[in-house]
Formats: sequence, structure tokens, C-alpha cells
Amino acid sequence: MSQQPSPHRKSTDAAAATGSRLDSYVDRYAKRTHGMTASEVRSLFAVASRPEVVSLAGGMPNISGLPLDVVGSLVNDLVAKRGMTALQYGSGQGDPALREQICDVMRPVGIVAHPDDVTVTVGSQQALDLVTRIFIDPGDVILAEAPSYVGALGTFRSYQASVVHVEMDDHGLVPEQLSAAIAAVRAAGKTIKFLYTIPSYHNPAGVTLTAARRAEVLEICRQADVLIIEDDPYGLLGFDGEVPRAIRADDGEQVIYLGSFSKTFAPGLRVGWALAPHAVREKLVLAAENSVLCPPAFSQLTVSEYLAGHDWMAQVKDFRETYRERRDAMLEALDDLMPEGAHWTKPSGGFYVWLTLPDGIDAKAMLPRAVTNRVAYVPGTAFFADGFGSRSMRLSYCYPTPERIREGVRRLAQVIEQEMELRATFGAWGAAQRPGLDAPGPDQS
Amino acid sequence: MSQQPSPHRKSTDAAAATGSRLDSYVDRYAKRTHGMTASEVRSLFAVASRPEVVSLAGGMPNISGLPLDVVGSLVNDLVAKRGMTALQYGSGQGDPALREQICDVMRPVGIVAHPDDVTVTVGSQQALDLVTRIFIDPGDVILAEAPSYVGALGTFRSYQASVVHVEMDDHGLVPEQLSAAIAAVRAAGKTIKFLYTIPSYHNPAGVTLTAARRAEVLEICRQADVLIIEDDPYGLLGFDGEVPRAIRADDGEQVIYLGSFSKTFAPGLRVGWALAPHAVREKLVLAAENSVLCPPAFSQLTVSEYLAGHDWMAQVKDFRETYRERRDAMLEALDDLMPEGAHWTKPSGGFYVWLTLPDGIDAKAMLPRAVTNRVAYVPGTAFFADGFGSRSMRLSYCYPTPERIREGVRRLAQVIEQEMELRATFGAWGAAQRPGLDAPGPDQS
Repeated sequence: MSQQPSPHRKSTDAAAATGSRLDSYVDRYAKRTHGMTASEVRSLFAVASRPEVVSLAGGMPNISGLPLDVVGSLVNDLVAKRGMTALQYGSGQGDPALREQICDVMRPVGIVAHPDDVTVTVGSQQALDLVTRIFIDPGDVILAEAPSYVGALGTFRSYQASVVHVEMDDHGLVPEQLSAAIAAVRAAGKTIKFLYTIPSYHNPAGVTLTAARRAEVLEICRQADVLIIEDDPYGLLGFDGEVPRAIRADDGEQVIYLGSFSKTFAPGLRVGWALAPHAVREKLVLAAENSVLCPPAFSQLTVSEYLAGHDWMAQVKDFRETYRERRDAMLEALDDLMPEGAHWTKPSGGFYVWLTLPDGIDAKAMLPRAVTNRVAYVPGTAFFADGFGSRSMRLSYCYPTPERIREGVRRLAQVIEQEMELRATFGAWGAAQRPGLDAPGPDQS
Repeated sequence: MSQQPSPHRKSTDAAAATGSRLDSYVDRYAKRTHGMTASEVRSLFAVASRPEVVSLAGGMPNISGLPLDVVGSLVNDLVAKRGMTALQYGSGQGDPALREQICDVMRPVGIVAHPDDVTVTVGSQQALDLVTRIFIDPGDVILAEAPSYVGALGTFRSYQASVVHVEMDDHGLVPEQLSAAIAAVRAAGKTIKFLYTIPSYHNPAGVTLTAARRAEVLEICRQADVLIIEDDPYGLLGFDGEVPRAIRADDGEQVIYLGSFSKTFAPGLRVGWALAPHAVREKLVLAAENSVLCPPAFSQLTVSEYLAGHDWMAQVKDFRETYRERRDAMLEALDDLMPEGAHWTKPSGGFYVWLTLPDGIDAKAMLPRAVTNRVAYVPGTAFFADGFGSRSMRLSYCYPTPERIREGVRRLAQVIEQEMELRATFGAWGAAQRPGLDAPGPDQS
């Protein structure tokens, strides 16, 4: 977002060097393994999970509205009537009946698909992993929004991809920047394998790609023959009664669409999917079989029974209301409490607000003080492959109550004001020890 | 097994060339994807799944003895009482209580472990995938038994490993051949990353590594500093009242142990695990998070409740009786019906018999005729990375009834006898069109 110094930048692979002297296996790991590093802020999050801390860091959906009696009874029936199927191995591509239902679930975003082109995956994270596996050789370029989903960046890194970020604004990915990025990467002799995008209710940016821009992005990618991986876990979770039309709805060859039941039903089942052109789908299934043999029949049939026997869309509407109330609480609290110089996105769906701090404040350096003041967030650097994002943070409103959200924002505003005072009194050095405000910090995710 | 011409041979990567003209994405796939090919015999298996065909090809456990009422009611309780946990995201390493229970489950094979060293995976296939992911660079060597598990070979191929097979006999892996293979691979300047072994009730060979040889294999690997991946899905499914002691029981640093609930409870849950040295475990969890974020809480807690609230070991004993009865039926039928010159292993546990045909008969070339005669098996070539195994086949006795097993063996014996007659009448050319009897055929799995 705003602190991007240029429209497209190469990944610096800052975390490439790793391996402690305590790990006697370090010489045997694959090259890719050296890019797999635990988050620097993981230990802080252990503290942040204490009940007295308001966590605006997590991305857990708020499933407290789920009808547990309905789910319990349908699972009981499932085991009684179809236990021999639900507890047995199944197809690597996923349950045929569920794949048909998934086609129905994609209708509201404008997609008309055939069940043969759907591959059921262990959450859409596995779809992301499999797509990366079949397309990426080390050094290949993936274009991704700046910022992008932290889980995707981890997967891309584990396949030694080079992520090139493309700037966004309040209307999502900027088409001109996309064109420029494609040209620049190709001029440098690199191979672009795909554009990874979350057009609707972006994680972490909280913005949505406009309809006009979707058409432009698709046209640019067609012209340049760049595949689009459209990740759409939040598509049905808009607050304004509109469901954004998927890019995939207008092109079945250029776009691989990833969906998930984690936000519309329950993440603990780990059921997601990929909708891909036929030839790609065949490769996805082979890769899935190598990876897990088949997705859990037990989870798949539970989702299938839930979709068939319950008004799942009414539940989605309930979820929307829950999240809208929390989004409202967060935006109101930010308006009321944030100091001058901070600015943030206004999500019309999904789980996240992207907040950029007043000039000179480093979100990662500030995190320990925030946790001490009993509020947690994810520093913006987690969402960049190249260390940028230090002035920003992701705030999630999906899980805490509106009251807790307001209290969390109040505590956060206090910490930011203290940082600003420190900076006013002692200059940049006093506020946070770091080389430069907008320069890449250490890689972190 | 017997038709191995040499103790260790390099993978020929016969399937490297792929991609039809119909696949317009073929130029964009990663190099690894070109090694992912569908089984040549897949279309035959579609025919083989017809009810009139006796399938001795599958590896599906026979779960008809599972107490569905117990499972249904415990899942209903689980959703009612712990639904918010069972349906939510969980730890990437897996549920802590289940990891403790897994340590109890490993006690009968002699393993004393700490829950911190256990990573829960989406079936043990995912454990295999993650281990391969963190250790294997393209071209690295994996030592594996000849024959080896087809699903492991697929995974190894997808990471561009070079598999070197090591000969087995009726007592499992031959230690001298292992030493020779290590020396030969290293003399050729290649890097060995690990030995992959299924010491107990081998799939597909149906043999068990003796206790004395386990000690030898471990000592050889210690001396040569070669990690051992011990895959043990069948360890508790022995028919003689003995549970073989795991290699891991005697070394926690040299051995990564893979376990599964697919054969002791139910495969449809997709719950397996890896027990690994601490440093490796950390990498496994990072790789798992990149792959699926976390294993399904719903499945994990179902397994956990089943282990806690049900006499799971009594169920395992029931399974043993089921499989023993079927093993007996198969061995008796083979003794009664197989023509002179065929020989086979005598499994003391697990699911599989490895049958080697009379000299001059090719199991893969014969498969269409077998399916026409309403019996199916998996040709031996599926279990080699290098095209060997053409004279052998895997017969599974886990799923059909004893009567069906006997009928299947009868039909198989007929087909073999017809092949032998053809061969006696017309010579090798008439029996099967192929370059040479023991030469590698096309890669297939």
C-alpha cells in the first residue's frame, strides 16, 4: 500500500540464511528448507494469547454462531448411514457429490463450472500449495499484491519462488502497476508463472478490487499470457448486500479459482477447493495424491450433508452481520481514538483493516510495547516478501467482541501516542532502533 | 525381491518425458510436474472396480467391523461439548492431547517418546511428503526396498529424488546389500538423504525385517550417518501375537518414525503422524503450515475421543482376526491352485502377498487378460522406480471375503496357466510383446 517506494520490487530472500548450531541435521536439509523459518513474533504471540491481551492479530473466524446441535446430529446420521464411506479412503480429487455442491456454492460469485474441474483440498491452503508445486521452479516469479496473504508468501518461499509485489490502492491492485511489473520482470529475463490475487475483501489490506479493474487485470493477464490464481475465501462475506463477481466468472482458461469453507462454515474441517482448467486439474490431483492420497472423506461428507440439509446461506448471512458489527466497532474506534497521521482502509467485507502509522513509527519495533499494553496486532512486514511494510499493521476484527475491539484500539492508540511523544522528544533514534523508516527490515512472517 | 539383477540400481526416470499436445499449460509447469504421471493401469482399474471383478489390487482396510454406533455417538458428543475447538483452526503441530495419546499408541512397538516430538499429519502420506520436502533436493538419493510402497515412490518422484532400490529376501532388507548400496552411491559422488523402509509387514512385499537385521540396519545407518525413515502403518497388525519392535525404539536421533490411524481405526479421517528429532520436528511443522496450515481438528479430536473412550486395542485385535482369516484363505488358495514355478511370500501380518510368476510371464502384459477373466492385481513394476518388477505382482487380501479371495486366486491361476500354454506353444513372443523378461519395462505406478 502507501509506503511502497516503487511499483514492483524483487524479493530479497532475506531469510535465506538460517540453521542454528544446535540443529545437527542442518547440513542435510533441502535448499528450500532454509527458507522455512519460524516467525520472529511467534514468541510474542504466545504472550498475546493471554486473556488480558486484546488480540487484533488473529484471523480465526468467529464460529460461535454455528448451530452445534444441527452439526452434531447430521454427523451422527452421517456415521450411522454412510459410515463405511465417510471413514474410508476416497478419491484423490474429492467426493463427487461435494464437487457438484461446490459448483452451486460458486454461483453467487458468477461462476458456472463443471464438477470435473473441481479438486477438493485440505483447506484452500493446500490448493495454494499444490498450485505452487505444479508451476514453480526455484527462481520463478510470482506476482502478488503489496501486501499479500502471509500464508501464501510462506508457501511461495518454500518452493523458492521470487515474489514481486504489485502496488494496491483503496480500489485494489493498480492495473498500470501490474503492466509495469510484468514488463520489468520480463525485461530482467525472469519467468512469471502467475499472478496471485485476493480481489475481494483482501487479507490483509481490507480493500476490494473494483469491477472495472477486474476486467482490466484480466485483460492485462490475457495479453501477457499470465495465469491468475484468484484466492477468494471471503467472497460471500461482504457487508453491503453485494457479492463481487469473481474474475474466474469471465475466463475459465486464464484463471485458477481457490475457494474455502473455512469462513462460510468451519475451518476445523479443512475443506477447500481449486477450480482449474482441465489439464491443470489433472496435475493438481496427481500432486494431491502425492501429498495426502486423498482429502478426508469424513470432513468432506460433513460439509456435503451440511450444505444439503441446512440453510447454509442463512448462516453465511448471520456471519456477515457478526463481522459487520465488528467492522463498524473497529472503524468507529479508529475514527475516535487514532492520533493524527495514522490512516487505514475501510473494508466492505472480510476480516481485516490495514493501518498505516504516522510517519516515523515502526510497527514491528513497537509490538513488544503494544503487547505490554495488552494489545496485539501483526506487523506489516509479515505481508511482504521483501521486508517492506514496517510502517503498517494488520488489525483483525473478526474474533473479539465489539467492546473488546474498542478497548484494543484504545490501548493501541495509547502506544502509538507514546511512540510519537518519544520521537518528538528524542528523534527517530529514541522511537525505534532501525536503519531507516521505509527501508526493508528483517524478513518476518 | 527375487528378480533383482543387482543389489542397487539407479533410477532411470523413465517417466520424465510427458505432456500431451492438448495441455496448453505444459510449457509452464515446474520441472517436478513432468514426473507426475497418471498410472497406465488406472483405466484398467476403472474396469476392475466392477462388482463382477474380484479385486486383489486395492489396499483399502476392511473397516466393516468398526462400531459405527460408538463412533456416531462420540462425534455427536464431541460437537456438542467441544464443537468450538473441533470446528476451529488448531495448532500446525496437531492437537496436544492427541499427541500425548499417540505416544501411548507407540508403546507396543517399544517407543518411548515425548509429545513435543510428534507432528500430526493428514495421514502418514503427508508425513512422507513433508519429510521428503525438507530433505530432498533434485537428484538426491533415497534408498528404498525393492519393491517399495507405490505412494512413497510417487512422492519421491515429485521431489525429483533418485531412488536406489536395495534388495530384500524373506527376512526383509538384506543388510549386506544396504552396505553395498551406500558404498556404491557414495562412490558415484551422489548424496544419500535417507533410507526409506517399511520393516513390519511390508507393502507390497509382505515380509518382515527380523529383529537381528533391524539392529544391523540401524548400525549400518549409524556408521554411515544415513537417516532412517521408518514407515510403520501395519506394526500392530501382526497375526502371531507378537508386535515387532520398531527401529526407532532403539534410536531417537537416527530414525524418523511414521505412524497412522488408517489401518488401526479409519483412513477417512486422514490422521497420521511423524515422530522426529526435535530440530527436524520444527522443520516438519513449518512445512506442514506451508502445506495445509494445520491438520483437521475435527478428525484429530474424533481420533482422540475414540482412543480415550473406546477399547481401541480390542478393535485392533478384531482387525487382526479379520485379516488373518483372509491371509489364510489366500495362502491356502495359492498353495492349492497356483501352477508350478510361481512363488510368493508368506506374510505374518499386514495386507499383502508378493507373488512372482513362472519364468517368462510378464505381470503387466497379462493384466488386461486377468481383468477380462474378472480378477485384478497390481503389477510389480508399480513398486519400482526403475521399471523392474515385471515378473511380479501384489495381491491384497485385506478387503474381499475369504470366498472371494479363493475365487480370485482361482481366476488368476487360470490366466497364468493360459499364459504358460501360450508361451509353451508360441515362445516368448506369443505370451507377451516385450523386449526382455527381466529388463525394465515402461515406468508405471
